[in-house]
Amino acid sequence: MAGPAGARVPTRGRCGQGSQYSSAMASEKPLVAVTCTAPVNIAVIKYWGKRDEELILPINSSLSVTLHQDQLKTTTTAVISKDFTEDRIWLNGREEDIGQPRIQACLREIRRLARKRRSDEEEDPPPLSLSYKVHIASVNNFPTAAGLASSAAGYACLAYSLAQVYGVESDLSEVARRGSGSACRSLYGGFVEWQMGEQADGKDSVARQVAPESHWPELRVLILVVSAEKKLTGSTVGMQTSVETSPLLKFRAEAVVPARMAEMIRHIKERNFQGFGQLTMKDSNQFHATCLDTFPPISYLSDISRRVIHLVHRFNAHHGQTKVAYTFDAGPNAVIFTLDDTVAEFVAAVRHSFPPGSNGDKFLKGLPVRPAPLSEELKAALGVEPTPSGIRYIIVTQVGPGPQILDHPHAHLLGPDGLPKPMP
Amino acid sequence: MAGPAGARVPTRGRCGQGSQYSSAMASEKPLVAVTCTAPVNIAVIKYWGKRDEELILPINSSLSVTLHQDQLKTTTTAVISKDFTEDRIWLNGREEDIGQPRIQACLREIRRLARKRRSDEEEDPPPLSLSYKVHIASVNNFPTAAGLASSAAGYACLAYSLAQVYGVESDLSEVARRGSGSACRSLYGGFVEWQMGEQADGKDSVARQVAPESHWPELRVLILVVSAEKKLTGSTVGMQTSVETSPLLKFRAEAVVPARMAEMIRHIKERNFQGFGQLTMKDSNQFHATCLDTFPPISYLSDISRRVIHLVHRFNAHHGQTKVAYTFDAGPNAVIFTLDDTVAEFVAAVRHSFPPGSNGDKFLKGLPVRPAPLSEELKAALGVEPTPSGIRYIIVTQVGPGPQILDHPHAHLLGPDGLPKPMP
Repeated sequence: MAGPAGARVPTRGRCGQGSQYSSAMASEKPLVAVTCTAPVNIAVIKYWGKRDEELILPINSSLSVTLHQDQLKTTTTAVISKDFTEDRIWLNGREEDIGQPRIQACLREIRRLARKRRSDEEEDPPPLSLSYKVHIASVNNFPTAAGLASSAAGYACLAYSLAQVYGVESDLSEVARRGSGSACRSLYGGFVEWQMGEQADGKDSVARQVAPESHWPELRVLILVVSAEKKLTGSTVGMQTSVETSPLLKFRAEAVVPARMAEMIRHIKERNFQGFGQLTMKDSNQFHATCLDTFPPISYLSDISRRVIHLVHRFNAHHGQTKVAYTFDAGPNAVIFTLDDTVAEFVAAVRHSFPPGSNGDKFLKGLPVRPAPLSEELKAALGVEPTPSGIRYIIVTQVGPGPQILDHPHAHLLGPDGLPKPMP
Repeated sequence: MAGPAGARVPTRGRCGQGSQYSSAMASEKPLVAVTCTAPVNIAVIKYWGKRDEELILPINSSLSVTLHQDQLKTTTTAVISKDFTEDRIWLNGREEDIGQPRIQACLREIRRLARKRRSDEEEDPPPLSLSYKVHIASVNNFPTAAGLASSAAGYACLAYSLAQVYGVESDLSEVARRGSGSACRSLYGGFVEWQMGEQADGKDSVARQVAPESHWPELRVLILVVSAEKKLTGSTVGMQTSVETSPLLKFRAEAVVPARMAEMIRHIKERNFQGFGQLTMKDSNQFHATCLDTFPPISYLSDISRRVIHLVHRFNAHHGQTKVAYTFDAGPNAVIFTLDDTVAEFVAAVRHSFPPGSNGDKFLKGLPVRPAPLSEELKAALGVEPTPSGIRYIIVTQVGPGPQILDHPHAHLLGPDGLPKPMP
């Protein structure tokens, strides 16, 4: 039975509900379980480089679009119980080391905030639940570490779930950020900026929503999945090396990004796709330029990525305007922004340039796309040798909301015993 | 018969000899023919971007290594005759449009310098030969436009040959530069800097030798030819777009290159391979970073290029020092610097990572390389999936001298009639 949150269970807006398994309720050993989902976000002004490795404070502000969870999300269940003897975590069904420094940083931070809240609000001693150990289980519905910002969704979901079970209502930027910098941007829906802040303690390095998910309903996002291989250089090590060795990165952070942030916010507020798309592409390119300026150099783009870049520029040149824009994170997959009236034609252009292999019927995932013919003029304008199977599949999605709480107990990834449920 | 230069034929140091075909000598229609060769140069501090498109003045100084002409050279014959009714040019056996602006700029400039010399030195009216039309033929012994700086060797050779037939002894930087910026660096052997200069008229934008070809005899240069395809974005258009759109390029030119020039000259003077190699790699990477920061972005590196980069870093990591360095121009071919004692092992590593196809016996061109075994430790350290036929062949060469004059008339590419000789 899913009941409303008990006295010790936090409420957070309309979603603030933990469910207590009835077995737990009946005894004096309350077991509080919450399951949340959190979205992936895609930066259009890129974050690359920390000024503080411990607190995860960035060298520049960044701005992202939150993707819809109907297509991409992390689901996390957090359960606390006085019967648990240790903190434990399962990722995608496999138990992982809870001692990982970033997970520890999140746990420490959420418990600090929970204690702070109680001491601020009440005279009472902190509730027992603050000393309860937590069991955490988390699954992604997409491949991890393939440049799809899985850690951002993961740590946002972790922070959000922990906040529910431990009763934290304050801004969670810091908790999520300590897990993975860009995770703080996954705490909100729509268009989100992560302000770099100025303070040494990072208190002003927070995410805030620039515009809600309803702001630009025509905007569509296509993820062109090139490869699900694990990337060679992880982003943590990569950005560290970049900060240490790239003269261009320092210049970018100090002299280029501030004006780009202001410009991007303006384009979003005005729903100016030309401006938004061009700046998105320029900033992606500049981020990858600073990777190449790193020593030894880092290359996240593959030849297929470059062919997608080429295709987008040809497509836009044919139309005489920026109808499609690409951005690439720390991996070869392309994320494409466009408007709903252009999706069908662009997908046809991708199919033409990258003829699907045997998975032709599963080439498109996510939002439906009506088949569209490709004009001979556009075919000629693309002028590329087709690259069969260069793109594995396309996920069609749109801008979406921030983290959600799932009310039904059958959504929990952990059973009443605090252990992972068998996979269905 | 090749005779010494006549009164109207210039002398330029020990090489200053034009040969007059005897048929021409016997008549009153002197026909002066000169054949010169000029080297390819490879920049280790890159030139990318002009501050003056007309005069070809760069936004930063650059520094290059002149490659030996035993392996790579352009050969050019220039013939002047009062019988010629128009200027004509043949490139690689095919007549081309002499009206091309850059060829015209070179011709105009050399004739201006020739007139200036006469008016400076003599009271006599300028010799008739100054009004003679010229026939030019030029051949490369390597594929053009494949990122091997063919235009640099070509315009250096053109400038040098024209100087011989028209009797110009002054610095030829400006003549060569008007053809192709980096051509001025091919006017000298060894290690050459092109000082960007400050004057608006470009008079101080000149090449000068930093160290002669004999300075660092152990230095070897390997050209890993990845592809002989014509590149997508020519360097002229590419650098123009970069200057217009890349914020990083402007910063590089103003704030990064000056210190790198000084550092590179120091490393060369001290024959410090570690410093030379590392800075060479960093500057190549930064140049390609600014290409990527260009909008639309420019990519000259292919996946094979990136594999070579990776191989070099692994090779160096295995040895715990920089024993090999790469640099890439506006194309996917890698140019490798190393010392003579490392060539055999590195070539073995390349053979291992890029197993030659059916051309195994012609995989190595140029200087001989003794076969060397590859240790199991190094093989493991390289740790790469071999890419069969990824590298087409390797040209092994070394630092070489500047332009040369060929004394034998059979070297002439044009016959006594001023037309191309039949190909042998």
